[in-house]
Amino acid sequence: MWGKDKLREECGVFGIFAPGQDVARLTYYALYALQHRGQESAGIAVADGRQVTLHKGMGLVPEVFREEHLRSLRGLAAIGHVRYSTTGASHPVNAQPLVFYCSQGMMGLAHNGNLSNAQFLRQKLLATGAIFQTTTDSEIIVNLIARFLEGEDFPAAAASAMAYLEGAYSLVILSEKRLYAVRDPYGFRPLCLGRLPEGWAVASESCALDAIGALFVRDIRPGEILEIGPEGVVSHAGPAAPRFAHCVFEYIYFARPDSILDGFTVGQVRRELGRQLAREFRPPADVVVPVPDSGVAAAHGYAEEAGLPLEEGLMKNRYVGRTFIQPSQELRSLGVRLKLNPVREVVAGKRVILVDDSLVRGTTSAKIVRMLREAGAAAVYYCLSSPPVIRPCYFGIDISDEAELIAARSSREEIREKIGADGLYYLSLEGLLRPFGEMARHLCTACFTGDYPFPVTNCRKTLTPHKPHLLGV
Amino acid sequence: MWGKDKLREECGVFGIFAPGQDVARLTYYALYALQHRGQESAGIAVADGRQVTLHKGMGLVPEVFREEHLRSLRGLAAIGHVRYSTTGASHPVNAQPLVFYCSQGMMGLAHNGNLSNAQFLRQKLLATGAIFQTTTDSEIIVNLIARFLEGEDFPAAAASAMAYLEGAYSLVILSEKRLYAVRDPYGFRPLCLGRLPEGWAVASESCALDAIGALFVRDIRPGEILEIGPEGVVSHAGPAAPRFAHCVFEYIYFARPDSILDGFTVGQVRRELGRQLAREFRPPADVVVPVPDSGVAAAHGYAEEAGLPLEEGLMKNRYVGRTFIQPSQELRSLGVRLKLNPVREVVAGKRVILVDDSLVRGTTSAKIVRMLREAGAAAVYYCLSSPPVIRPCYFGIDISDEAELIAARSSREEIREKIGADGLYYLSLEGLLRPFGEMARHLCTACFTGDYPFPVTNCRKTLTPHKPHLLGV
Amino acid sequence: MWGKDKLREECGVFGIFAPGQDVARLTYYALYALQHRGQESAGIAVADGRQVTLHKGMGLVPEVFREEHLRSLRGLAAIGHVRYSTTGASHPVNAQPLVFYCSQGMMGLAHNGNLSNAQFLRQKLLATGAIFQTTTDSEIIVNLIARFLEGEDFPAAAASAMAYLEGAYSLVILSEKRLYAVRDPYGFRPLCLGRLPEGWAVASESCALDAIGALFVRDIRPGEILEIGPEGVVSHAGPAAPRFAHCVFEYIYFARPDSILDGFTVGQVRRELGRQLAREFRPPADVVVPVPDSGVAAAHGYAEEAGLPLEEGLMKNRYVGRTFIQPSQELRSLGVRLKLNPVREVVAGKRVILVDDSLVRGTTSAKIVRMLREAGAAAVYYCLSSPPVIRPCYFGIDISDEAELIAARSSREEIREKIGADGLYYLSLEGLLRPFGEMARHLCTACFTGDYPFPVTNCRKTLTPHKPHLLGV
Amino acid sequence: MWGKDKLREECGVFGIFAPGQDVARLTYYALYALQHRGQESAGIAVADGRQVTLHKGMGLVPEVFREEHLRSLRGLAAIGHVRYSTTGASHPVNAQPLVFYCSQGMMGLAHNGNLSNAQFLRQKLLATGAIFQTTTDSEIIVNLIARFLEGEDFPAAAASAMAYLEGAYSLVILSEKRLYAVRDPYGFRPLCLGRLPEGWAVASESCALDAIGALFVRDIRPGEILEIGPEGVVSHAGPAAPRFAHCVFEYIYFARPDSILDGFTVGQVRRELGRQLAREFRPPADVVVPVPDSGVAAAHGYAEEAGLPLEEGLMKNRYVGRTFIQPSQELRSLGVRLKLNPVREVVAGKRVILVDDSLVRGTTSAKIVRMLREAGAAAVYYCLSSPPVIRPCYFGIDISDEAELIAARSSREEIREKIGADGLYYLSLEGLLRPFGEMARHLCTACFTGDYPFPVTNCRKTLTPHKPHLLGV
Repeated sequence: MWGKDKLREECGVFGIFAPGQDVARLTYYALYALQHRGQESAGIAVADGRQVTLHKGMGLVPEVFREEHLRSLRGLAAIGHVRYSTTGASHPVNAQPLVFYCSQGMMGLAHNGNLSNAQFLRQKLLATGAIFQTTTDSEIIVNLIARFLEGEDFPAAAASAMAYLEGAYSLVILSEKRLYAVRDPYGFRPLCLGRLPEGWAVASESCALDAIGALFVRDIRPGEILEIGPEGVVSHAGPAAPRFAHCVFEYIYFARPDSILDGFTVGQVRRELGRQLAREFRPPADVVVPVPDSGVAAAHGYAEEAGLPLEEGLMKNRYVGRTFIQPSQELRSLGVRLKLNPVREVVAGKRVILVDDSLVRGTTSAKIVRMLREAGAAAVYYCLSSPPVIRPCYFGIDISDEAELIAARSSREEIREKIGADGLYYLSLEGLLRPFGEMARHLCTACFTGDYPFPVTNCRKTLTPHKPHLLGV
Repeated sequence: MWGKDKLREECGVFGIFAPGQDVARLTYYALYALQHRGQESAGIAVADGRQVTLHKGMGLVPEVFREEHLRSLRGLAAIGHVRYSTTGASHPVNAQPLVFYCSQGMMGLAHNGNLSNAQFLRQKLLATGAIFQTTTDSEIIVNLIARFLEGEDFPAAAASAMAYLEGAYSLVILSEKRLYAVRDPYGFRPLCLGRLPEGWAVASESCALDAIGALFVRDIRPGEILEIGPEGVVSHAGPAAPRFAHCVFEYIYFARPDSILDGFTVGQVRRELGRQLAREFRPPADVVVPVPDSGVAAAHGYAEEAGLPLEEGLMKNRYVGRTFIQPSQELRSLGVRLKLNPVREVVAGKRVILVDDSLVRGTTSAKIVRMLREAGAAAVYYCLSSPPVIRPCYFGIDISDEAELIAARSSREEIREKIGADGLYYLSLEGLLRPFGEMARHLCTACFTGDYPFPVTNCRKTLTPHKPHLLGV
Repeated sequence: MWGKDKLREECGVFGIFAPGQDVARLTYYALYALQHRGQESAGIAVADGRQVTLHKGMGLVPEVFREEHLRSLRGLAAIGHVRYSTTGASHPVNAQPLVFYCSQGMMGLAHNGNLSNAQFLRQKLLATGAIFQTTTDSEIIVNLIARFLEGEDFPAAAASAMAYLEGAYSLVILSEKRLYAVRDPYGFRPLCLGRLPEGWAVASESCALDAIGALFVRDIRPGEILEIGPEGVVSHAGPAAPRFAHCVFEYIYFARPDSILDGFTVGQVRRELGRQLAREFRPPADVVVPVPDSGVAAAHGYAEEAGLPLEEGLMKNRYVGRTFIQPSQELRSLGVRLKLNPVREVVAGKRVILVDDSLVRGTTSAKIVRMLREAGAAAVYYCLSSPPVIRPCYFGIDISDEAELIAARSSREEIREKIGADGLYYLSLEGLLRPFGEMARHLCTACFTGDYPFPVTNCRKTLTPHKPHLLGV
Repeated sequence: MWGKDKLREECGVFGIFAPGQDVARLTYYALYALQHRGQESAGIAVADGRQVTLHKGMGLVPEVFREEHLRSLRGLAAIGHVRYSTTGASHPVNAQPLVFYCSQGMMGLAHNGNLSNAQFLRQKLLATGAIFQTTTDSEIIVNLIARFLEGEDFPAAAASAMAYLEGAYSLVILSEKRLYAVRDPYGFRPLCLGRLPEGWAVASESCALDAIGALFVRDIRPGEILEIGPEGVVSHAGPAAPRFAHCVFEYIYFARPDSILDGFTVGQVRRELGRQLAREFRPPADVVVPVPDSGVAAAHGYAEEAGLPLEEGLMKNRYVGRTFIQPSQELRSLGVRLKLNPVREVVAGKRVILVDDSLVRGTTSAKIVRMLREAGAAAVYYCLSSPPVIRPCYFGIDISDEAELIAARSSREEIREKIGADGLYYLSLEGLLRPFGEMARHLCTACFTGDYPFPVTNCRKTLTPHKPHLLGV
């Protein structure tokens, strides 16, 4: 009942260069820590100096990999990927990493993000004799790089290709002997570098570095191409963008609370957003109840700032998240409910501040409010630690159609009425940005404002001159 | 890294009589809500008036059942079971329900609990020509009842068998046309009755009734035999025990916080235990950090009572719980950690009150304390919302050997030193019992006190006169 | 399109006692050689002196067992089973061996055959408190033996139980330390003993002994109970029957051509039946064509005796036998045919002697004749190396209803017309028996004659005096 | 124990254009009839006018496809493939058909054969920016065709690509709306056209047409490109070769006996080769015994010509062919044997003419001879219905190294001694060719003679001018 009402993160990537270590196993544990970024498929590719070996499949990390797979994946470097599909249908062939043969031998690539000019590039490549075996953006990137490899080393070819790529891409790439990491010039998606006692790792989030005992070194810079080999880490410059555009939703919802992105601990940002929310709206209430798990951190901040008790008034089934057989509408109407259960003793007769991180499509909010009322709540105030989502995202979040966004077509009062709350409060854009201080101007907030970092619509619809802003024209 | 340091609940049971409803599907959802009581195997048996049909398998509920299974399980009544093995090896053949043919036709049975005189009964039955195909207590119960069925109706045969059964058993039983529910005379394990618009349900916990939209009616009484058929619910009296002995650990750890057992909302009891703990011990501290998820409710109570902020200083990987490939000791020593990650910003430089529900074997506590220290905690006070566990349980919890219990062989100071905390505090027995008021005397606290409801050790070791206290001798 | 038109063999059993050998692996290879006796499920149980361990599953032997299973099945003795269901639904729970605990510890049993008084015995056992978890005859046998075990050793208990068992049973039984083999007093189903360099084996057919390099020693005698342990093989006498009744269909169709049963090589018997057939019927013809594979041996004999060329005029898809998706009736009518394809060059313009072993239901015979005519055959004479099957079998073959038997309700001319052949010839009963010489009077030919070895019908319908002929009354 | 001693056929292909029919299901049955050409993987792709949908997997046809797969593959045309790997590792990614996006939309391709200039073409394509995701020749063909598609229709692009392809290839190709079939200019591998009541089919062998009720129309001509659409079948001319080169081993061993290739019924050719063998060699003997199944047809011919009885002296386990756990060397030496069992009564005291089709590596021949001697054979004469294989094949058979060919390095006498036979006889080349009459000069017999249809070795080793003979230079 839930997934449909949340924005969905697209992917997580990880890479490691550590000759002598069990690189596949460490990648397995790192992917396990990044599992929240994608539950549809998982894969690991390993390079052993002569070839690249791959295992991938549909499902969660521990479902896809058994001991025998890890044992067979031996090498000096590895990359891994967890996926929740944004582009490309949900089909095994679209799982990543993608492993391929090019003029420099075998390579592997894993990708987090979304190209905004994918259609354009794909048509151009097809017209010149390329074939595609998947519908992923990643295969476009791979083909484009391959075209630039003749007479060039990999970093130069990647930089040449980046001049044509438009959109969000954090890449980990494996050659037969080396590891590369690439972050797009806008820095839409996170990517950071860590150090092992003898080796290096890159990851979408620092929690994956923690999971394998690696020390966080730094974020990878927008437009940077890192080359990692036996001689250490070399930074190459790719194209520059006129500004940075880190996705603010990573802080609001996607990233794990214990990750540190661009200097900010995600969970502490969320708690501060809850405090900020309490400064902006404080209806008369008796208790703060979080929507688990997404609203917990902000609810703590709210309760603290408001001086109200926080209670677990909605109990979540810990086993939700697995694929199970959905109840029919008829069973739902008979009261079958699987994810959340209200705790009568907590809410009966109380005025409840219900805190969640965001409200996108609005379909489950109404159910939660009704559930609390049936459990005896005297009033339900729905408080969100982010502004209304009114515009689609082209950079790796699965909303490409405004029609799905309730706030794009309804007023706050209409939404409040629809979900049946006694009050509905969104955090202001200023409130959202305050915890970030100086860094705020480097954030992409286009889904709240429509202020995209570059004019993306043209690029998707025409096949004419593209990306002049990146090419310095 | 976790399971080994927690007591493990044994099983959950559910039964439904609702002709015209999709009883298997409702059982599926109910088992999903009881999943926390057993993750090793799951099963559903359905009666359609002429026969009993079964599907069961190893794994979580949504892993064992696919749509085709639910479709093929049609009938007027059903029982279901989730299992974490206590008796009987972890083997498919030991999954429940058990379906069998007896002189009255086909029957099915699912069992939560543990017989303390299982060996005695099994030997007696074998000696008189019975065979066993599993190592479960349930097969003993089934054989015993079958011996009493000649010339008796089911409730009478069950009552006769109960006179020989010693220990904990909450049973749901299916005949070809009816549903029965039985709770042992001590009432060790919970069992409650709910009402559907057209039908009845019984469940280990009320959260399973909530999940299917059933209304809670009442707890099933210790020693009671409920017979449910088209004419409604009939209560038969089984043998009586000299006292009640509801397991207090259901409140401390096992049951879901939103369940109501014998009138008490579990989560509210836990929060009150946290408050009680704060009244008993309040070392100088800056922040309260729960061990997720088991210590969350008590930590809230502690923070509230102590007037300290509660922060999520330990982040749990939400996907833990699934079977994954365990890291080797070598990888662990290199810092690979999968379940919990400390949040540096929360604990660095702080004196931390760490709250958990219980400490049984002590193996992971040391890791958590070290993790917090490495993240910069100035002090770590380990606070437990229950007394030291010093004696084994024979009634459905998987500790039958005192050697596994750290508090049975070490002093509090020794344990504190072993886990490396600056302080170690256990809730007192009085503190534990206070929230229960009058009901406290009906609780089994034997694992804390050694004061078993009846002299269990003799019964396990000898084959001589058994259960005279139940037989009225 | 085939299975329905053939009698189906029920099961194959194998046992081995060979401390120090990999008994499970040898059993695996033996079952592989017995695969033709049952393709529905397979299982192996191993005894290691202290316990009996089991692995079984649905499917062919190599589908059920993987290397890991064989590795985990270590011991000094083993039994194995392949099954094609006769009694008991096709359900995993009915796969064998059956492993159980009785008063003498763990045991395992595998069974080939069918009890004719199963219902009677089952009712008797249920009435005295037994429960059943399967619908197999084997569970009845096990319960009956268990009732006799008190104060008796196993061979004595088995002998006592045999006095009550009526019908066909070749059993291999495993205790924690020994192997037993039992053949019913009539000797319906085959069972033979072989010798290994260090150990002993028993098998349904000698081809299984060949497969593992064991030397054939002798057939196990009807009514014999073999006990095999470290001291060697001890023969115990069970009850005697007034006659022997070896199933003649083992020679006609069931057994492998390279097996030697009671002194006769099966394939040579079949060839001789073909010769006999040519002596009885020799219509004017150009070529002898076997129905593969069941008619090949007899066709060779026919061609030899008749001095006609044998040609492969019907080609069989070698991969038939595996479960595949059956074509709809519509596709069949469009000409989709999967098992057999006629070879035009062989049959066009020829008068064809078509040879098969038996004609039971007649459903595919018509298709084959039509197929040959469409390929241009000038005439098709259908010749069968056995008499018409007119009565059901109660001893391990899956025909219990005369309505399924075409020859029970139609004349030879009616059948010939139905299948569209130019001639239809059955071997005479005398012709069938001739190759066996003196041994002929020990054969059961009841399905051709209705002359059952004992009055079986009464026993199946009443619950009154049973098996007086066996009990010596 | 067998596979290693036989040449292995590479693949089978099938295509169908039949709007309104269940094209996937008909392809399934056709692949089932072609299963002998490849047991490693199977796949079906379907075109519905807008897209191409694929399902493929490792295993036999009925293992890869379930009803749900067939249901989901709806369309107007389909292609199918069964594979036994020659090029490309045995890995799921190498299973066929290959489905891809090119400038003309989605396409699918399945391939039987082997390119002799694959390395050259692959390097050329890589150097100009292509990437490869498999190691199959098929991906080379697809990339090459894609390069020619700009501004060309498919038949023209295919013809252009064929000018660069060297070696064996029978292709079935699917666009979103049409079916194409291509046979290489030498006609190495078979490919034929059939007619359905409303549609067309192409297949590697005519037995697949028989299986679905299609009428054989004609063989597809070497160098021909067939285009099949709603308007019917259009033949386009591709490049011509200086001669034809049909693989003679299709007749000796690969093809099914009931298939008709280039006008010859395969089984009748084999029988005639047996007769020819009897004319060339007739040692004094008592019985002719075929090696099942490969020697059966020739043995019939031999027995007929020699006037000797044919008996089944070697019994084959019908279930061989499935993947099972191989016995260790130790078990083999103890006598474990799985595929073949000698029939003592047939061979004891007899001089045996043992007939097989070919002897390639010689590893199992010695085992068979020893087996027959141990069963009492007085003499064993090993007769082969083909000449010694002395040179590798580059056109779709998995022998690329002469070191594997026993006849390439040993004299006939040495081989006879090695396998322990009393005599070893190979059919002469003249004897092999005689049944083919005029057609003999169109056969490729390079593996017996070294007389390759074109100088293949240069092409594999150099990257310089290629295929002048095809380009008309």
